[in-house]
Amino acid sequence: MEALLRQSRAMCPFLNKTSPATLRSMSTSTNVQHTAPGGGAMSNLQIIARRCPVMGKALSVQSSRMGNNVLSGAFGGSRAYSSRVPRANLHTGRADKAQAVDLPRTRREAYSPRATGQKPAESAQTQKHSHGVPPAPPQAARFDYEAFYQNELDKKHKDKSYRYFNNINRLAREFPQAHMSTPEDKVTVWCSNDYLGMGRNPEVLNKMHETLDMYGAGAGGTRNISGHNQHAVSLEASIAKLHAQESALVFSSCYVANDATLATLGSKFPDCVILSDSMNHASMIQGIRHSGAKKMVFKHNDVVDLENKLASLPAEVPKIIAFESVYSMCGSIGPIEEICDLADKYGAITFLDEVHAVGMYGPNGAGVAEHLDYNIYANGGNTKGTIMDRIDIITGTLGKAYGCVGGYIAGSSKLVDTIRSLAPGFIFTTSLPPATMAGAQAAIEYQMSHRGDRRLQQLHTRAVKSALSERDIPVMPNPSHIIPVLVGDAQVAKRASDLLLEKHQIYVQAINYPTVPVGQERLRITPTPGHTKPFRDHLVAALESVWQELGIKRTSDWAREGGFIGVGEENAQVVEPLWTDAQLGLTEVVEGLKAGTGALGVLESVLAREQEEVRQVQAVAAAAA
Amino acid sequence: MEALLRQSRAMCPFLNKTSPATLRSMSTSTNVQHTAPGGGAMSNLQIIARRCPVMGKALSVQSSRMGNNVLSGAFGGSRAYSSRVPRANLHTGRADKAQAVDLPRTRREAYSPRATGQKPAESAQTQKHSHGVPPAPPQAARFDYEAFYQNELDKKHKDKSYRYFNNINRLAREFPQAHMSTPEDKVTVWCSNDYLGMGRNPEVLNKMHETLDMYGAGAGGTRNISGHNQHAVSLEASIAKLHAQESALVFSSCYVANDATLATLGSKFPDCVILSDSMNHASMIQGIRHSGAKKMVFKHNDVVDLENKLASLPAEVPKIIAFESVYSMCGSIGPIEEICDLADKYGAITFLDEVHAVGMYGPNGAGVAEHLDYNIYANGGNTKGTIMDRIDIITGTLGKAYGCVGGYIAGSSKLVDTIRSLAPGFIFTTSLPPATMAGAQAAIEYQMSHRGDRRLQQLHTRAVKSALSERDIPVMPNPSHIIPVLVGDAQVAKRASDLLLEKHQIYVQAINYPTVPVGQERLRITPTPGHTKPFRDHLVAALESVWQELGIKRTSDWAREGGFIGVGEENAQVVEPLWTDAQLGLTEVVEGLKAGTGALGVLESVLAREQEEVRQVQAVAAAAA
Repeated sequence: MEALLRQSRAMCPFLNKTSPATLRSMSTSTNVQHTAPGGGAMSNLQIIARRCPVMGKALSVQSSRMGNNVLSGAFGGSRAYSSRVPRANLHTGRADKAQAVDLPRTRREAYSPRATGQKPAESAQTQKHSHGVPPAPPQAARFDYEAFYQNELDKKHKDKSYRYFNNINRLAREFPQAHMSTPEDKVTVWCSNDYLGMGRNPEVLNKMHETLDMYGAGAGGTRNISGHNQHAVSLEASIAKLHAQESALVFSSCYVANDATLATLGSKFPDCVILSDSMNHASMIQGIRHSGAKKMVFKHNDVVDLENKLASLPAEVPKIIAFESVYSMCGSIGPIEEICDLADKYGAITFLDEVHAVGMYGPNGAGVAEHLDYNIYANGGNTKGTIMDRIDIITGTLGKAYGCVGGYIAGSSKLVDTIRSLAPGFIFTTSLPPATMAGAQAAIEYQMSHRGDRRLQQLHTRAVKSALSERDIPVMPNPSHIIPVLVGDAQVAKRASDLLLEKHQIYVQAINYPTVPVGQERLRITPTPGHTKPFRDHLVAALESVWQELGIKRTSDWAREGGFIGVGEENAQVVEPLWTDAQLGLTEVVEGLKAGTGALGVLESVLAREQEEVRQVQAVAAAAA
Repeated sequence: MEALLRQSRAMCPFLNKTSPATLRSMSTSTNVQHTAPGGGAMSNLQIIARRCPVMGKALSVQSSRMGNNVLSGAFGGSRAYSSRVPRANLHTGRADKAQAVDLPRTRREAYSPRATGQKPAESAQTQKHSHGVPPAPPQAARFDYEAFYQNELDKKHKDKSYRYFNNINRLAREFPQAHMSTPEDKVTVWCSNDYLGMGRNPEVLNKMHETLDMYGAGAGGTRNISGHNQHAVSLEASIAKLHAQESALVFSSCYVANDATLATLGSKFPDCVILSDSMNHASMIQGIRHSGAKKMVFKHNDVVDLENKLASLPAEVPKIIAFESVYSMCGSIGPIEEICDLADKYGAITFLDEVHAVGMYGPNGAGVAEHLDYNIYANGGNTKGTIMDRIDIITGTLGKAYGCVGGYIAGSSKLVDTIRSLAPGFIFTTSLPPATMAGAQAAIEYQMSHRGDRRLQQLHTRAVKSALSERDIPVMPNPSHIIPVLVGDAQVAKRASDLLLEKHQIYVQAINYPTVPVGQERLRITPTPGHTKPFRDHLVAALESVWQELGIKRTSDWAREGGFIGVGEENAQVVEPLWTDAQLGLTEVVEGLKAGTGALGVLESVLAREQEEVRQVQAVAAAAA
């Protein structure tokens, strides 16, 4: 080999300009030293030789003469494999595609295409060739990994689903503002899932600072091996209490919680069937897939379709109905009570993802299930038989309204202990850091005792929704805190998002396929308690400007076409917000206004009052810290 | 239904003592209001009736008369389902088992056993029964979820694999000590994966405090939607640099990184085959399973077996060789270079998990792959063609030697961009908190510029291993920083762990099945730079005491039986530590001692010197902060 290199360098520009170290590394693969069933390595350098205009031609002639024979030999010889590979594939060489790749500049690119593939039995002959004579011809094209990646990325670019991440640094002291890659470049964030601004809540931050100093940065182990501690015990107790369930279990994220729980139950229950809402989150879809259980997808929020599917299954078969409370991309809310009824009727258990609802709904912030029995939970009544009590498995996150990171399940002690004991995604991973768990617990407890943030968030949501409606900007109607503004085209949605950022210093991410179906692209706006009137006015004006500049369809335009996914639909049912006027304290204010107060609009006057209350609570908390 | 309740309460003690609210909730499922293909709900209350000594008998007679007919009717009627359920299962009623359950005290327990299962078509008749007459007989037992959980837990108790978590609160200021559930109850932790004590490193903690104050507790979104920031950009750049790869990508954990990456590649590469070391971590096993790709398991660290498997596959088929550098439960080290050679030879890519090695090996702490070219990386030479450069995908964690939480992959830009674009476990989850990412980056950079911690850790490891060997306490030989002490029995291992904790205030978790095979149960000890001589002496004395008290086998006992998994094996190859004497600075000290210094043992004198160096570095860091 070395002799060949020395000879060739004199006449070959590639060999001449490449350093000896690089050449050595490219030829490393010939140095296989252990005793193997066969020898005969082909180095990366030899592979590159195939691309040489001088060497390549001679090699490809040889290759085409020998390739197919070797291929079928290898195929016939590997019985274990032969049953899986469609025969046609084997004769589809990938060499053509790969040869279009430029000459390699780095080692990694030299990977493609690699070609040897001789069987060990045939290698003795090959090895003889590698001394002083040109390298043995490649006998079958190898898989070109880098070209495969490139092809996958090209597809994403082509269908406009390639994602460009925006560098957004949310500033705790200037919430809801953030800076971009430089500290001077400020924007207002209008699409964070830190819905309540708990990420900068003084009680949460103080608890985290304290815990960091006392217990350090990380947990240092899995829950079983030195990573179980008082923070986990206490956080799980708070979560169980929040959801009025017997037990809870914390995971790295709710993605992991959903995936691990559904995968474990679905694979352990004998012949389990999982009934899944068609708009369920990716984590549930993956968990169901990973379980290997039979999946039946029911139409979004359609209890008739769900019941039809349940009724088609034998009674004794274990069934899990997996669904969400707030569907995050459209803001719709699941029919929780009706699904509980069906679960009871057909012997199923319910798996409810409250990820976008915890902290946001209910008198204690436990989510939509709690909110549906608002008065019972607000007044501390007997919660037995309430909707939240009827749910078998509630999952939630610590990373959205609670402002931290992590996820959890809550349910019966036996269920939770089973998942704790069986789910690899729980068992074999490092626990969340003590400070994260302590901070999340502080956030949960803060929201259990303060309703101001989530009421204010709802009021801001109402204000933005009505301001956009007045401007004929198409909001997809829903009863929740999500404001999906319909655009209907991937490129236009991205352009709108870019314009908002560049021209108006407003960050709202465009939501495109595959997160939403093609044609339903949107901007997803999420107000927080920090989005006070000046911010809201700025947002509405900016959207108006962008809608004009890009000529994006208005609600009335959609209406002229007969309406689309709730926008501009004639005779559409009026969607009432889940937080009622009474729960928001609006009715009493209306009474007050009727009795003769000021000129301010009802909504704005409530907003001003709530804002002041929240400000005062936070000032007290900050002072106490 | 109400009439029935009123009648029955007078004569039934259960109905009499149960509150109206509870009874109402138990009967909720009869209130199904939406239009369904069938009616006929069976409430929880009716189900409980089956357990009543008076009602139950009559019901079970009816049930056994009607059950099978209904069952086969339902079965025949649901074609979508019938292909999946083994017929035999359908005739295995679970009612008997369930009937052994105590009378319910809570709603949840009332779930088991539930029984109705009539098809919608048959429900009209059933509904008639529910007015004023006893409830309709159950026609097929429902699946008893709570009994299923109990049964799974019973199995874990029976095979001694049920896990009891110890409440361990590691104290940043008293490292390596922790307190148990009360602050007074102190123990020394000897099994943390915070191998270097980076969890209490002042530079890491200061960076985290600063970032918390500036950017808040959580990221507030996925990477695509407001959760991408300068901390992610900068951390990923540091990781790529650390591993001399083009790009890196951070995940919630390395469990998620391994799972998501293998699942994505294995499912996307056409006809992919994944070759997996038999001792691979659960996260890789899950990733491979989730990929749906063909899996071939090769014998642990056996390159001959691996080559046989590679040689059996067609050349053009994409292949991933998935393996680890340090196997955490036995401390063995993978033959990385030989596996790279085989990958080159057979056109495979390499997937190397360096989770237990990052921070611990190599002049920059990049892991074992870097360590194998120690001098090149220590002297800043051309790294092209080095072993680390030849690895296609390196995965690592931020939660062990780096003391925080999170995981990552590093590789070519195209590979990383492909995973970034396709892996649901990356895309659909909240980013790690800014402070976590900033802290982890500080830890990586600290370890890139300071070798003291990991050298000291190695020296402590050597000291403990040799002290235990002198006492005839069976350490499983390996070249790494893990000290697996063989016990060989699940109950004895747990007892030893409990004794260490209760009697000696030392925490070492017992490692039992399924983490290690039955019969190979062990105590897994992991020294840190903080485990100075007094701690080590205490540990060795405590182990000696426990070994005596429980009569656990010594190395010589295993030897008399011919040896077992490396312990007491005659003619066993001597395992040299990966960190050589020269790399640890031992050789120069030996020279110095030969030239006539002090009476201290060589190892202890080096230890004293290293300890002092580390102390000084940390004092400077703390002062600067």
